[in-house]
Amino acid sequence: MLLSEATVTIVGLGLMGGSLALALRGKCAMVLGVARRPELAELAVKTGVVDAAYCDLRSAAAQADLVVLATPLLHILSSIPEAAAFMRPGSLLMDLGSAKAQVVEAMNAIPVAIAAVGGHPMCGKEIGGLESADPSLFCGATFVLTPTKRTTGAALSLAHELVAATGARPLALRAEQHDRAAAVVSHLPYLLAASLVHAEKEANSHDPAVGMLAASGFRDTTRLAASQVDMILDTLLANRMPVEAALTLFDEKLAQVRSLLDSPDALRGFLTDAQRQRRGMFT
Amino acid sequence: MLLSEATVTIVGLGLMGGSLALALRGKCAMVLGVARRPELAELAVKTGVVDAAYCDLRSAAAQADLVVLATPLLHILSSIPEAAAFMRPGSLLMDLGSAKAQVVEAMNAIPVAIAAVGGHPMCGKEIGGLESADPSLFCGATFVLTPTKRTTGAALSLAHELVAATGARPLALRAEQHDRAAAVVSHLPYLLAASLVHAEKEANSHDPAVGMLAASGFRDTTRLAASQVDMILDTLLANRMPVEAALTLFDEKLAQVRSLLDSPDALRGFLTDAQRQRRGMFT
Repeated sequence: MLLSEATVTIVGLGLMGGSLALALRGKCAMVLGVARRPELAELAVKTGVVDAAYCDLRSAAAQADLVVLATPLLHILSSIPEAAAFMRPGSLLMDLGSAKAQVVEAMNAIPVAIAAVGGHPMCGKEIGGLESADPSLFCGATFVLTPTKRTTGAALSLAHELVAATGARPLALRAEQHDRAAAVVSHLPYLLAASLVHAEKEANSHDPAVGMLAASGFRDTTRLAASQVDMILDTLLANRMPVEAALTLFDEKLAQVRSLLDSPDALRGFLTDAQRQRRGMFT
Repeated sequence: MLLSEATVTIVGLGLMGGSLALALRGKCAMVLGVARRPELAELAVKTGVVDAAYCDLRSAAAQADLVVLATPLLHILSSIPEAAAFMRPGSLLMDLGSAKAQVVEAMNAIPVAIAAVGGHPMCGKEIGGLESADPSLFCGATFVLTPTKRTTGAALSLAHELVAATGARPLALRAEQHDRAAAVVSHLPYLLAASLVHAEKEANSHDPAVGMLAASGFRDTTRLAASQVDMILDTLLANRMPVEAALTLFDEKLAQVRSLLDSPDALRGFLTDAQRQRRGMFT
């Protein structure tokens, strides 16, 4: 099955699902959407995001060559067996969830006739919803693909075609490897941003000058705190052990920098090292 | 003395001093620069950033109606008595340092014939140097003015004119109030960014997938870690007690969010509260 001949069903028409639908326009036979709210399903059809939309999974999954689950993680986990039960033999099930171990476990348990590959595009925006959907959201992003016991060669090939169609770069990782890495570079930064906002809020309650001095540095450091809570909450709970390990690692680094306030030269070394590492990662 | 008739000497022609010089072009009688390195002084004149440039303070301070110190903080502190010794009676000394208590203390000790007002524009870029200077750097930023024992009405009026000329919004704060607030919304975010980069570096040394998954969320959360170390190092050391208090406040919030990983509903509340606060601060 080539992507160009495939009917793709996207479950969840928020930022991620809506952006994927837009990115796939003209690159597959048909794009179907599934949204819980009838008015969202209607809007997605009216605005040309999808060819047709449904409020339940059954018929949209039964028509699909490829089903992509793009809802919050707990909903993805419960949808995996449900979608698989409706899907045709030989069709492929994917997801866009931000933590992969439980997803892969659930995919491993579906009927052998259905193929499955976990996915996680490393991109997003803090404002969710179909109205923020953007066909270029995935462009240049790393799109992680996690193999499952249901990953056939044909399935992987179609998954790679999907990634290429969005402009993202595929990266195959085991689920556990993805989850540990994502905890450090994605879930931890989010928790730091949310905690920093709470620190500012408390300090500001004692002196309103605090908020008045918040400028671009504070704005960027806390950007993730404005993200959709529904999406991230499920992820944090599902990825709890790697998240706790990332918090412990961060606590060590923060305690280290605090202790270095006594040692200007060592502090300079720590900060210069961070500067070099950061400048090497992003130009 | 009106700004339009003033000769302004800017000590330090990096990002902040260079940007101030550019913002003042055409708005005062003359802009003089002081740079340690002769080639930088020459470049600043050749590129029209200043009308003339010097490598030592004496003559540039003696000609000025207004001297603005725009070097790293320890250098500002040692320059305050030195500049005041060269300045004409009735002239005004200011600075752009990121921590104000020690600056104000030093300004309080200069001869009474010289006026002084502390200043801190809440803006910046992670890449420093004259080549990054930008006349619009201050536009829309909050520009803190801290009164000293040497702050006369005429001095404050000229300082306000300077702020207005850069497009910034003046905010009068006591030095201690500024320092506590800046520790929370500026120095703390910088330390979090640097510590997060170190956590990523360590995790990446065990598995290179970590760095490969770092995307826009990590990029923005760590942007401050790429800042010029010289500027921030002095600030952290000079503002140590408020910085430690901010770290303690943050540690409490991070421990709180960690403990809430056991309580999904309370975690949702914490994250939603942060989201609301952050969205209210920046649109």
